[in-house]
Amino acid sequence: MIIEVFGVHSHVINKDLRYTQAVVIDTLRATSVMIAALNNGCRQVLPTIEIDEAMLCKRTMREHTVLLGGERNAVLIPGFDLSNSPLEYTRETVEGKVLVLTTTNGTAAIHRAASSKRVLIGAMINASAVARKLMEEGDHTTIICSGTRGKYSLDDIFTAGCIISKLRELGSEIQLDDLGFTSEMLYLQYKNDWHALVKNASHYKILVDCGYADDIAYCMQEDVFDIVPEWIEGIVVK
Amino acid sequence: MIIEVFGVHSHVINKDLRYTQAVVIDTLRATSVMIAALNNGCRQVLPTIEIDEAMLCKRTMREHTVLLGGERNAVLIPGFDLSNSPLEYTRETVEGKVLVLTTTNGTAAIHRAASSKRVLIGAMINASAVARKLMEEGDHTTIICSGTRGKYSLDDIFTAGCIISKLRELGSEIQLDDLGFTSEMLYLQYKNDWHALVKNASHYKILVDCGYADDIAYCMQEDVFDIVPEWIEGIVVK
Repeated sequence: MIIEVFGVHSHVINKDLRYTQAVVIDTLRATSVMIAALNNGCRQVLPTIEIDEAMLCKRTMREHTVLLGGERNAVLIPGFDLSNSPLEYTRETVEGKVLVLTTTNGTAAIHRAASSKRVLIGAMINASAVARKLMEEGDHTTIICSGTRGKYSLDDIFTAGCIISKLRELGSEIQLDDLGFTSEMLYLQYKNDWHALVKNASHYKILVDCGYADDIAYCMQEDVFDIVPEWIEGIVVK
Repeated sequence: MIIEVFGVHSHVINKDLRYTQAVVIDTLRATSVMIAALNNGCRQVLPTIEIDEAMLCKRTMREHTVLLGGERNAVLIPGFDLSNSPLEYTRETVEGKVLVLTTTNGTAAIHRAASSKRVLIGAMINASAVARKLMEEGDHTTIICSGTRGKYSLDDIFTAGCIISKLRELGSEIQLDDLGFTSEMLYLQYKNDWHALVKNASHYKILVDCGYADDIAYCMQEDVFDIVPEWIEGIVVK
């Protein structure tokens, strides 16, 4: 399997994705939120780039079935039902509902992957499941990390490395680009102590300052869920 | 010192560089060529982005004093005097001459840094000298790696990490972004065996395939020269 890793979604430009399967990662926290919500019975997730777009979705659907979730500057958007904390997306809250989600990086990263053969939603909490799903197609894979504020983010790169490492364990013959090599190396070095790595991430500091340390611990857990959401025609489903 | 690292020069967009000093790195091979040439008596280097621009420079200057150097697809450009191999830039060849250099990534990276307070030319062969020079200003530093074919390249990142590590040895209090952290970690891990890292770079494979393995060994040497060329008003001088 040929694997290319992009550290920031906006770096995916002039890139022909038609012959590649894509994995989009925003470990802290958008893709972790989607996985947690869908696992807890949420029917589907609509990732939107803009807040207005999310609000329009809610107005045009039956209101009582729709939850608005997401963040700007890491915190709850005024008028929204939920922030971008996966801990809020309990079964009691999300079961049977449609989630419209807009976040600073993650939802834009998903849209960036639009032209690829298929778009899988990855995070630490479903890393092994993603690797197994990628093996089904087993050819060219593009891992698109969301990044933070337009820059490479250690939490996403660690996750990319985790998925690569799981692919190798599954027996995949892997050909990595330079960033893929770096990702796997970082993962192997820190897999027994993610905190020693991720505490150096600027994103880590932002979230801790906003009181979201518990979210980080949740999102950095490996292989909690066995589902791989997929973005199909604008909707993320389980 | 606050240090930001960019893995590819084209990622430096919408970035205010006016209050930062910049180091431009293209270890394999453009910045190594500039350093070697200037050390061997070359008077100045004019980095140009386009081949036509380089040829125009030669026509408008006194021909006998000008050498055209550079590469496209790693090899000599037809009609040029020298390729992008630092081994060609001996004292016999370059002393007293002006070098007009155009390469795929490195010369574009230098132009990308144009708006910063000053633009230093860095590589493995002058890493410690670059670190000492940065300490003179000691504030905000942006390290711009050229990258290879629009992507993050291990050889440049290793060099960024080397310069960061030298700064730390000089006693600088350093605040790194996520890619800076990764760079330093890669350097510290592989500093006694750069080959174990750099052999994984796609750029390494391209150069070896073109017969330039000796260039790589040359360019990966640490601290051979004590000079830090600077790009001032379009010209790189010693």
